Amino acid sequence: MSYVLYYSPGAASMPVHWMLLEMGVPFEARLVDIDAGQQHDPEYLRLNPAGRVPTLVVDGVPRHESAALLMLLAERHADAGLAPAPGTPARGEWLEWMIYLANTLLPAMRDWFYAASDGDPAGADAVRALAQRRIEAACARLDAHFAGGHAYLAGDKLSTADLLALVLMRWTRNMPHPATVGWPHLAAYIRKLRARPAFIELNEREKLTEWRNDAQ
Amino acid sequence: MSYVLYYSPGAASMPVHWMLLEMGVPFEARLVDIDAGQQHDPEYLRLNPAGRVPTLVVDGVPRHESAALLMLLAERHADAGLAPAPGTPARGEWLEWMIYLANTLLPAMRDWFYAASDGDPAGADAVRALAQRRIEAACARLDAHFAGGHAYLAGDKLSTADLLALVLMRWTRNMPHPATVGWPHLAAYIRKLRARPAFIELNEREKLTEWRNDAQ
Ligand SMILES: N[C@@H](CCC(=O)N[C@@H](CS)C(=O)NCC(=O)O)C(=O)O
Ligand SMILES: N[C@@H](CCC(=O)N[C@@H](CS)C(=O)NCC(=O)O)C(=O)O
Repeated sequence: MSYVLYYSPGAASMPVHWMLLEMGVPFEARLVDIDAGQQHDPEYLRLNPAGRVPTLVVDGVPRHESAALLMLLAERHADAGLAPAPGTPARGEWLEWMIYLANTLLPAMRDWFYAASDGDPAGADAVRALAQRRIEAACARLDAHFAGGHAYLAGDKLSTADLLALVLMRWTRNMPHPATVGWPHLAAYIRKLRARPAFIELNEREKLTEWRNDAQ
Repeated sequence: MSYVLYYSPGAASMPVHWMLLEMGVPFEARLVDIDAGQQHDPEYLRLNPAGRVPTLVVDGVPRHESAALLMLLAERHADAGLAPAPGTPARGEWLEWMIYLANTLLPAMRDWFYAASDGDPAGADAVRALAQRRIEAACARLDAHFAGGHAYLAGDKLSTADLLALVLMRWTRNMPHPATVGWPHLAAYIRKLRARPAFIELNEREKLTEWRNDAQ
């Protein structure tokens, strides 16, 4: 199994990068500098016509969509245990969280960060206001889940849903209401996940200094 | 395996309803009249705190998110062949299409239909304008896929991605640019899928008369 990950620091590639480190499988990481616009290079567009990160080249075939990549890696490396096994009671819960995050939170983040370039800049404030409302509602929902005594999102065990959720939470850090403030159960979960060796290693590799347990 | 589907005609429950019919598995269907606001009934909110359809009660446990339900059913009924098997080359393609639809098209549809109630009505026009742009871009992308000679979305075989895509395409029927107009390869795909006996049966059961091959 060969993997080449095209990533940009702190971007939607981050949960996939994290997962590869968490599982300890060999992979090559190639930087796509989205601030420099490298996602629009013709060479990159051949791998990902949408001009986004991540792209994960899996045994020579470029694949996209962070949530799909997490699910694909989970089944290719079932023994890493980052998804409940098919047929187990937690499986439906895991699928539901993965889709909820992909469906509700990830698109709202796209709106928050890209409203003015994906759409008419004149409408961006309205788009961002709705995005903010949805992101805060999602944070509240996560907080309520953890307030209910759960240690993780699905099946009370670390899964790809947690990796995706944490990166989404990271993106709230400069928003009007960051995930770490005012939602105590969510904040505790964030601190717990940020303490994982693979997350610390991930920040080193992506050269990220913000939003680490040792940086707050 | 027992299934109770809470559905509303033509809503996000429709691909799940279709899949159950397509596979021929026994299930009970219960109507939630969203025009009458039944999704807010306390009894329904116990099954689905978000007050949305669908809910699929799987062996007594309520589960949500249409795309997740399709994926769960595909693995519970692997012999129905509505998803490429894990480990096959088409698997990554199928996951990517499922997430793309769940990620890009489904949230844009939510924006198109619910901008004024999910958010501030004053901002709804801006939200809907961006949604329209994204929906039309997705239709163009699907048309290009079929122009490339593919018969279906993933692995050139019918899968849950097609069931989800078709319902999303149905929702464009009263939009400024319906999916059936101006994208000839997409239109041919739509006609082909609408001819399936299970889709015809689905329309009978949901009492839908629009957007059928025999109604155009
Ligand atoms: N649905 C995609 C979203 C990817 C995405 O929007 N990536 C952003 C970075 S977080 C990007 O590539 N932005 C550059 C651009 O759009 O030009 C996924 O989850 O992989
Ligand atoms: N992400 C959800 C979306 C469900 C959804 O938005 N359903 C709509 C009907 S298409 C609904 O229940 N609307 C009623 C409401 O929001 O009050 C899914 O795919 O299941």
